[in-house]
Amino acid sequence: MRDTLDGRWAEIRRVTREELRRPELAPGTAMPTEEHRERVMEQLKLLGSTEGPRLLFPEAYGGGGDLGGAVTSFETLAMGDLSLLVKAGVQFGLFGGAIMNLGNEEHRSTLLPKVMTAELPGCFAMTETGHGSDVAKLRTTATYDAASDELIIHTPDEDARKDYIGNAARDGRMAVVFCQLVTGSGSHGVHGVLVPIRDESGDPIPGVTISDCGHKAGLNGVDNGRLSFAGVRVPRTNLLDRYGSISEDGTYRSRIDDEGRRFFTTLGTLVQGRISVSGAALSAAKVGLAIAVRYGLVRRQFEAPGADREIVLLDYRQHQRRLLPLVATTYALHAAQESLVAELDESFDGAALAAGEDADIPDRRVLESMAAGIKTATTWHATHAIQTAREACGGAGYLSENRLPELKADTDVFTTFEGDNTVLLQLVAKGLLTDFRDEFSSLDTIGTVRFVADQVVETVVERTAARRLLRIITSAVPGRDDDADFRDRDWQLELFAWREEHIVSSVARRLQRAMGDGGDPFEAFNDAQDHVLAAAQAHIDRVVLERFCAQIEACADTEVAALLSKLRDLHVLSLVERERGWFLEHGRLSASRSKAITAEINRLCAELREHAQLLVDAWAIPDEVLAAPIALGAERDRQDAKYDGA
Amino acid sequence: MRDTLDGRWAEIRRVTREELRRPELAPGTAMPTEEHRERVMEQLKLLGSTEGPRLLFPEAYGGGGDLGGAVTSFETLAMGDLSLLVKAGVQFGLFGGAIMNLGNEEHRSTLLPKVMTAELPGCFAMTETGHGSDVAKLRTTATYDAASDELIIHTPDEDARKDYIGNAARDGRMAVVFCQLVTGSGSHGVHGVLVPIRDESGDPIPGVTISDCGHKAGLNGVDNGRLSFAGVRVPRTNLLDRYGSISEDGTYRSRIDDEGRRFFTTLGTLVQGRISVSGAALSAAKVGLAIAVRYGLVRRQFEAPGADREIVLLDYRQHQRRLLPLVATTYALHAAQESLVAELDESFDGAALAAGEDADIPDRRVLESMAAGIKTATTWHATHAIQTAREACGGAGYLSENRLPELKADTDVFTTFEGDNTVLLQLVAKGLLTDFRDEFSSLDTIGTVRFVADQVVETVVERTAARRLLRIITSAVPGRDDDADFRDRDWQLELFAWREEHIVSSVARRLQRAMGDGGDPFEAFNDAQDHVLAAAQAHIDRVVLERFCAQIEACADTEVAALLSKLRDLHVLSLVERERGWFLEHGRLSASRSKAITAEINRLCAELREHAQLLVDAWAIPDEVLAAPIALGAERDRQDAKYDGA
Repeated sequence: MRDTLDGRWAEIRRVTREELRRPELAPGTAMPTEEHRERVMEQLKLLGSTEGPRLLFPEAYGGGGDLGGAVTSFETLAMGDLSLLVKAGVQFGLFGGAIMNLGNEEHRSTLLPKVMTAELPGCFAMTETGHGSDVAKLRTTATYDAASDELIIHTPDEDARKDYIGNAARDGRMAVVFCQLVTGSGSHGVHGVLVPIRDESGDPIPGVTISDCGHKAGLNGVDNGRLSFAGVRVPRTNLLDRYGSISEDGTYRSRIDDEGRRFFTTLGTLVQGRISVSGAALSAAKVGLAIAVRYGLVRRQFEAPGADREIVLLDYRQHQRRLLPLVATTYALHAAQESLVAELDESFDGAALAAGEDADIPDRRVLESMAAGIKTATTWHATHAIQTAREACGGAGYLSENRLPELKADTDVFTTFEGDNTVLLQLVAKGLLTDFRDEFSSLDTIGTVRFVADQVVETVVERTAARRLLRIITSAVPGRDDDADFRDRDWQLELFAWREEHIVSSVARRLQRAMGDGGDPFEAFNDAQDHVLAAAQAHIDRVVLERFCAQIEACADTEVAALLSKLRDLHVLSLVERERGWFLEHGRLSASRSKAITAEINRLCAELREHAQLLVDAWAIPDEVLAAPIALGAERDRQDAKYDGA
Repeated sequence: MRDTLDGRWAEIRRVTREELRRPELAPGTAMPTEEHRERVMEQLKLLGSTEGPRLLFPEAYGGGGDLGGAVTSFETLAMGDLSLLVKAGVQFGLFGGAIMNLGNEEHRSTLLPKVMTAELPGCFAMTETGHGSDVAKLRTTATYDAASDELIIHTPDEDARKDYIGNAARDGRMAVVFCQLVTGSGSHGVHGVLVPIRDESGDPIPGVTISDCGHKAGLNGVDNGRLSFAGVRVPRTNLLDRYGSISEDGTYRSRIDDEGRRFFTTLGTLVQGRISVSGAALSAAKVGLAIAVRYGLVRRQFEAPGADREIVLLDYRQHQRRLLPLVATTYALHAAQESLVAELDESFDGAALAAGEDADIPDRRVLESMAAGIKTATTWHATHAIQTAREACGGAGYLSENRLPELKADTDVFTTFEGDNTVLLQLVAKGLLTDFRDEFSSLDTIGTVRFVADQVVETVVERTAARRLLRIITSAVPGRDDDADFRDRDWQLELFAWREEHIVSSVARRLQRAMGDGGDPFEAFNDAQDHVLAAAQAHIDRVVLERFCAQIEACADTEVAALLSKLRDLHVLSLVERERGWFLEHGRLSASRSKAITAEINRLCAELREHAQLLVDAWAIPDEVLAAPIALGAERDRQDAKYDGA
């Protein structure tokens, strides 16, 4: 099972797991903030001496040239201290990624070698206090001053200060600051500019004000801070100018004329960050579930009549129902994540970038939509799974030594950062809705985190072929359901696809109707917002299932494949049970079939309970990072001692 | 609105709120553990000089003799630092409550005056490492030694050490230790014994080993610890002997012959603890929701086409749907909690206790079941509401200064302590199932936190009148549904009652069938566990709704009553929407009615959005304890400055 899960980057997973066993990299539990920050900075430097971060960068700059491997290494690292993970994500992924993807050859060759060793600690300064989700509306400015050939970086007011910026409060020396670029010919939208923020001795550069975001729910090993700029001057050449440059005579030039499209292209090159967070969330969920399942296999409570020993928690049906469907969904998401990483890897050609063969604007719309969708699924899943794991461990789960408190607190912001999940779902929905336009071709209605209504409602839905929608919505419900086996993969796939198509079509039709008599686009969209989000959710559910099925199909070991199929059944039926209201409303489940699903889930839980240990051990979390005494036999040892003594 | 909510103990709420405004009682956010513990101990002493804790105790011992007022004061205190709340709960409610309810006149008159001032810090040592939920199986022993007329307190092994004990690691001087009481005539079950654990200088008493549970997810101002006893001797008179005593000649006597019944009576007197936690959870949920709603009313993000300013978050439908149903359910639970406190108050006669008029064994089965049920509802609600509030505030909700991280971490264990919610739900279910027995009369099948199967399945279900069950299950579904107004209170009440009766009956019948052919009781129960829990949930939902309706009925102000009715509608319909799968399966909702409910919820959200500020302000949380800058206008001020400057 482990071989199947480890997949294409198995060797990188293995090496990273070994690295994680080093005592210096052990999770820093419940440390004072300053001490934790210092420790994590030391760990970052240590990490900078290993292979993992180098994989991210092309060989031409001393890197390893294996983007998929880099993301996989990062995912594995997330089994340990998540503060280190996020610090590494900021340094290598965001700061380094921005230089690699948005900079020019000069930027890459001079800076990347110092980025990948953490010799130059840097920040990715995009979010502002007033603009987290709507980043196109950032208000920090970079104004070109022709006289001095410099850019002037300026924060107009407190609302425009850079906020929540990792690496800013303590360690960062340089930041990629995202600003509205202004030249003599006007404003050209958001661009990244390299801005030194601290000098060699660690003091802020004159004009740069740095403050500390202070204590957070978790991730306190990361020094999040706020940055304000009072007319700070940097050379024109500090502009990361892959998609928009200023020539020596002060003329702005871009290969992409449309400002909106240019912005989305800029953001699109950073898709790896979202995919990395998604993988990290999944690893954290695995750690939480592994702890709870292992504890559930040894912790006993309450005697059954006539039994000589108390009952193991995982023998209770309710305990199985709490944990095992979450294990199954973790497996499904693992498969989806693995395929997403492979797609990212294929979409990126670092060697071409280094060789200056950069004529094509990368079109990553499909990848971006997929990354957004899967990120919402994995991060919400992690939040839910870790919370459930904590509760399933009772009081023991509340003690920091058992890791669940820190896991919960650290991952809680994953649903918010690298794109708020609700906003990302709207992005996914937008992609689905705009697919209805036959003539769809330009970038400007997708690849964006902007509010959906303005484009979808106005330009898309009006033109959608109404007949096609109606056909889908009114088409007869497939009739073979009553005979179908709940464990039939093809039935499951068809069910999920049908649900997606039905919801997407009915949302599109609803928006069409609302706009039909000259309705207000914001109101039309806002009225349907819950429906729009449901469409995106149904889409993601279908995609995840398809990818899980593909993984099982590819699995050569029949025993492993059979076990994975049971996990797929449990994942699917748990979701159908949760959503059975919808299926019943739409005539796709009869009342008796719906009740039968609950019974089938109970059977599946009982079957999988026998494999529970194997299922969590297959995630191969080293004991050194699992760390929780309750997961490492402390409970069993104590209980055995009790019975030996009795 | 505030007057309606403040209810019977309005003056006590007002006074406690004023106390909470004192700077010394401000929440201790993100402090180092040792500093936080010291601060909370100082706060506890300060609290000991106020009226609140005295209310708990009869006037004869210098108390205020107002149990309902004491619980209400405690509930209000929970708007502030929850570490102080829990420390106070341990000191006054558990330690003091055990002495008051389980001790004799001598215990009460000598100890209570020092308990209520916190001069004698104490512990409630029930939970053991190996037994948290199944406390009847505790293994610490108190063995009577006739020669010395002493009790010998002993911990047989590590599994039997007292664990998670509040006030133990740093401050406690004395503990009520729950032990199996053993005399020459045998074992008599669990009893409480007063055991000194530290001397005047703070050192552990010889034979007592104290260790620290260390850092926890939250509540780090409380010094939870572990206690082990190596043959520690205390005078016989240290036994809290209200329900079981040892006379001078060494004879054990109890007014309650059955050991099980004696144990449940002992536990039953401690019901106030569970009710107090329930109220505290509700207060914490109010603080979290107040922060999120206030932020949602000023935070803006994304422009609508043609608008000159960005849209306020709470104008988005999805944001309304996330927060407003939680506000509505908080109102419903508030009413249920208030009525529960009134029942507790009526059930307790402190003056009679002090006067020695203690002939009757209190029968609190109904109150206990109600307390257990409402505690599960309020604590799960708090966990969910605070998590949602955090997410609704995005990155700002992740900063400790905005209180949500600490609220989340502190309250997370509420679902576990004072009875794990899943175990409590089984207790509620047991009460429901045993109600089917006409001949039901003894205590021993209710009032217990023990595993349900042994009694329900074996002794109850077999005898239940099968005909009655069948009648309920097969009775025609009421036919008037299609005409009923979703906002018709009587329709709502009937719907909830019908659901409860249906689920309870079908569980009973299922257990009957499973046992019919000589089935194993554990398997029969375990097979139906999810169904059993659903029965308890349906019962609690019905009770909460009835109590909310009663509160609205009693409200003289028609405007307030109308607003409360809207909240009731939203609370009810949100629950029906969540459970619509069940209603559809059981023919109680048609597909079109079910869809119409979603539309009605959206309308209700839009109607209530206009009152959002009023609804959270009515909870009267003082600014000093609300504390979060994002809830106190920081966001609005910043945005206004931006627009003034633009």
